[in-house]
Amino acid sequence: MVLPPDVSQAEFDRAIAAFRNAVGPDWVFTSDDDVALYRDAYSPMWSEPEERVASAAVAPADVGEVQAAVRIANDTRVPLYPISTGRNLGYGGSAPALSGSVVLDLKRLDRVLDIDEANASVLVEPGVSYFDLYRALRDTGAKLWLDCPDPGWGSPIGNALDRGGGYTRAAFRNHFDAHCGMEVVLPSGGLLRTGMGAMPGAKTWQQYKAGFGPWVDGLFSQSNFGIVTKMGFWMMPEPEACLIGRIYADKYDDLHALVRILTRLENSGVVNGMPGFGSPLLQRRVPADPQNNDPNGATQIDQALHDAFYTGDDAAKALIAERVKSTGRSCWSALVKFYGPERMVRLQWEIAKEQFGEIEGVRFGDPEFYGFPLSDADLEKIHKPTFGIPSLSVFNFGIRTDLRPEPMVGHQAFSPVIPRTGAAIFEANKVFARIFTEEGLPVPPFNLPGCVWERALMLICIFPTTHDVETNRKYRKALRRLIAESATRGWGEYRTPVAYYDTVMSTYSFGDHALLRFHETVKDALDPNGIVSPGRYGIWPQRNRGGPR
Amino acid sequence: MVLPPDVSQAEFDRAIAAFRNAVGPDWVFTSDDDVALYRDAYSPMWSEPEERVASAAVAPADVGEVQAAVRIANDTRVPLYPISTGRNLGYGGSAPALSGSVVLDLKRLDRVLDIDEANASVLVEPGVSYFDLYRALRDTGAKLWLDCPDPGWGSPIGNALDRGGGYTRAAFRNHFDAHCGMEVVLPSGGLLRTGMGAMPGAKTWQQYKAGFGPWVDGLFSQSNFGIVTKMGFWMMPEPEACLIGRIYADKYDDLHALVRILTRLENSGVVNGMPGFGSPLLQRRVPADPQNNDPNGATQIDQALHDAFYTGDDAAKALIAERVKSTGRSCWSALVKFYGPERMVRLQWEIAKEQFGEIEGVRFGDPEFYGFPLSDADLEKIHKPTFGIPSLSVFNFGIRTDLRPEPMVGHQAFSPVIPRTGAAIFEANKVFARIFTEEGLPVPPFNLPGCVWERALMLICIFPTTHDVETNRKYRKALRRLIAESATRGWGEYRTPVAYYDTVMSTYSFGDHALLRFHETVKDALDPNGIVSPGRYGIWPQRNRGGPR
Repeated sequence: MVLPPDVSQAEFDRAIAAFRNAVGPDWVFTSDDDVALYRDAYSPMWSEPEERVASAAVAPADVGEVQAAVRIANDTRVPLYPISTGRNLGYGGSAPALSGSVVLDLKRLDRVLDIDEANASVLVEPGVSYFDLYRALRDTGAKLWLDCPDPGWGSPIGNALDRGGGYTRAAFRNHFDAHCGMEVVLPSGGLLRTGMGAMPGAKTWQQYKAGFGPWVDGLFSQSNFGIVTKMGFWMMPEPEACLIGRIYADKYDDLHALVRILTRLENSGVVNGMPGFGSPLLQRRVPADPQNNDPNGATQIDQALHDAFYTGDDAAKALIAERVKSTGRSCWSALVKFYGPERMVRLQWEIAKEQFGEIEGVRFGDPEFYGFPLSDADLEKIHKPTFGIPSLSVFNFGIRTDLRPEPMVGHQAFSPVIPRTGAAIFEANKVFARIFTEEGLPVPPFNLPGCVWERALMLICIFPTTHDVETNRKYRKALRRLIAESATRGWGEYRTPVAYYDTVMSTYSFGDHALLRFHETVKDALDPNGIVSPGRYGIWPQRNRGGPR
Repeated sequence: MVLPPDVSQAEFDRAIAAFRNAVGPDWVFTSDDDVALYRDAYSPMWSEPEERVASAAVAPADVGEVQAAVRIANDTRVPLYPISTGRNLGYGGSAPALSGSVVLDLKRLDRVLDIDEANASVLVEPGVSYFDLYRALRDTGAKLWLDCPDPGWGSPIGNALDRGGGYTRAAFRNHFDAHCGMEVVLPSGGLLRTGMGAMPGAKTWQQYKAGFGPWVDGLFSQSNFGIVTKMGFWMMPEPEACLIGRIYADKYDDLHALVRILTRLENSGVVNGMPGFGSPLLQRRVPADPQNNDPNGATQIDQALHDAFYTGDDAAKALIAERVKSTGRSCWSALVKFYGPERMVRLQWEIAKEQFGEIEGVRFGDPEFYGFPLSDADLEKIHKPTFGIPSLSVFNFGIRTDLRPEPMVGHQAFSPVIPRTGAAIFEANKVFARIFTEEGLPVPPFNLPGCVWERALMLICIFPTTHDVETNRKYRKALRRLIAESATRGWGEYRTPVAYYDTVMSTYSFGDHALLRFHETVKDALDPNGIVSPGRYGIWPQRNRGGPR
């Protein structure tokens, strides 16, 4: 068992006894077997001294018990690491940022407190998963969709606080932006409600975001300034129909126009679902992804072709043109989605086709059209999150394939935000390929945006984590270089695994790290004892700053 | 000249000398005539001891001079009250929240730093007005619209920081939500960039809002935690077309269905412009407002009819039905707007008509259709902010009319956020009418939502301010009662004149005023000397808390 760096065994024991008293002995976990469940199964530092591990876990039943745990932590200086469902896999799972922290597991705060169909909003607790919320919506018959990330076992609160994204309409895809109102246990143990919730008996807590005075909600995302115990979200009313269209373009340089026209269509309100990009010619090295990929095609790696996508010079373009011709597959595909009344989505697809028609030789797939409720046949073939349905099928991406004889142990993500241009996609891939080559690692397939934000693109590069120390070290080194070299080009990470919190935060260095110092000032004011999630997103309390951590 | 409550004349003089040294003697204003220009011309406390007045004003030329002014303020404890263009009329103008503060006039920071047409974003300084930005957009030929409130002389930064709203598509109407990235001079004098701007050389400062770690931007809205010196905004690309449709319904109870159907249409992406409500039967007591009103009709008050709108009982409904019949004018009108490709907006209006067709006897006006650029004839008749064009024509609402023999001196606004239902509109009006009657003030015309937020309605009740002390006191008392009685019903103010900052903040009292205490904790940490805008939005620094203010 690993103690927090500056807490004695006696103080720690006193804390555990107090936690048992506060939440009941059954809900304090201290055995090695129990605590091991909170390890990050995907940790890129697995079994190394740097791996972050908890000392114990406490699972309060309600807000009052959360407050009690916080008071005990202040009294004993034992740091807490709150998790909602702990499914932040690829970015840290349920393991703390500081070894020795006690995981505060909020899974028992699992109530869907309100479903308001007329206002299309919900109020939930952190232990509610996307599956739980989906079931609650279905049980009440409310015709509301939830916007979820690919794995549906996570928590809407947890995902929003990490500022994750999903797949439906733009207004709902940014999960933090789609929230409305919070309740927070502060590091002092006090209880705060934000927005209109600060008014007792407020009628618009889930209807109007900002309330009166400074809008403080953003402080509680990607931070350690408080423990969110309730959060409201705006839901997407079930649309009459959904139409999914596919666009195919043959020339390497067509990516510029694809991005540009898509931006125009989104900005003008014609395309309102999450767009996607793919390359039928290249095929990505993961199993068929209904989001982007042509499910058919060769499975052998055509190394010359792969290299050509990175190179992008005249010879490369000629090779790509030849392959397009010989295989009959397009260089690029784009996928656009429309939600709304049937006539509207059909017209929007017509308008989109006209605009993409600017690209010479562009072709269009037959659109997929869906009405609701979905048929069983539809349910089998669709990408469920596109339809507000949580799923776990994304986890097949690490499985054994002809190209990956051993399944992946886990993964970690590198997710830089880049400008919304084809040029940025090409440039980023070139930089990343060079770093991988220099680090002696296999160059991953050409990466197309995994997330299309309203005015920026995000590449989501997935790297394996293993139980082999040397391999993990090699990837960690490469990832640190990716972070650093991206930063020199002005591309910032939106989120990162625990191992890279400080590395990433150090790239946001304007004004001699003014933002980090600002975070630290707020941290010291709100959490003078440094008991909530020390180190999370690079924010260390005074006691761990420059000292043991 | 009024000194700050706890600053000696000698210290004040030392500050003024230092300001002159820092920004040049021409840009420090101390004469009575000069300082009087910063009085709130609309103050509801005009010439009373409670009126908030500045001691002097300082107009720095750039960010470095803003930082210098902040350092002088820390050194001398003279509080600063930053304004951008100082046009916050109806909510305080350019006058400080604490008498004796030195206005920090940012009008000389007036650069449009970036216009990015491809990404539909701009970066501006606080002294830039909507007119300035409009001209800059036209000068570059960028086909971007700005979303502005009715008076266009204000500052996009100032208005966004007060969380004002406008008239175009929902994604742009909430001016704070439409911002992307800030630069802030902190009360310590340090310079902070938020979001991606915290990365030197960031490529997506105006493209991705949150950056890495806590999203702190909201802290700088409706607060006194820093001085915003740069801010990015997302602009609306010029649409191909705009269609404006009008719906007329005859029965008093039809308001419920009008609101409900409009909500559904907005939620499903069919209606995307700012909706409006009116009553052709009642006519509002202001000159024709192209937003909502039937420009024709009687101008005499039909008192029985007005009373009936508040009463809403069976007899009232019978009277209203009779008047609808006798005048041929509808009880309610709703206005919906669509922006997008011509075929899309025409189809959206057809879909909207079908859905409003659920209301028995509903009628539709001939839609107004606009292509761009607008013709001169169109420019004459339109409500300009609906088309991204700043204007000052709203100021005709206080002019002399047959019903108002003397023009208004000024006005103050009471702006509660209420649920998005017809029932809430009826209930709120009933409560407000009772308070006005009890306070011996004329009951204003039945109030329909002046702002339709995405999931809430906002009533904007405009009351006169005068130079008569007794009249002002009477209205202040009524306004305090409106705030208090609204709060007991769960309706919170979104923004308020300086006179009511503390009154409103005290209604956000959940958890023994946990939110205010949170603000104070942050304030003390960021501004230990209490030198930035003491009292703004009810946040007082330690030195003024419970003491002189």
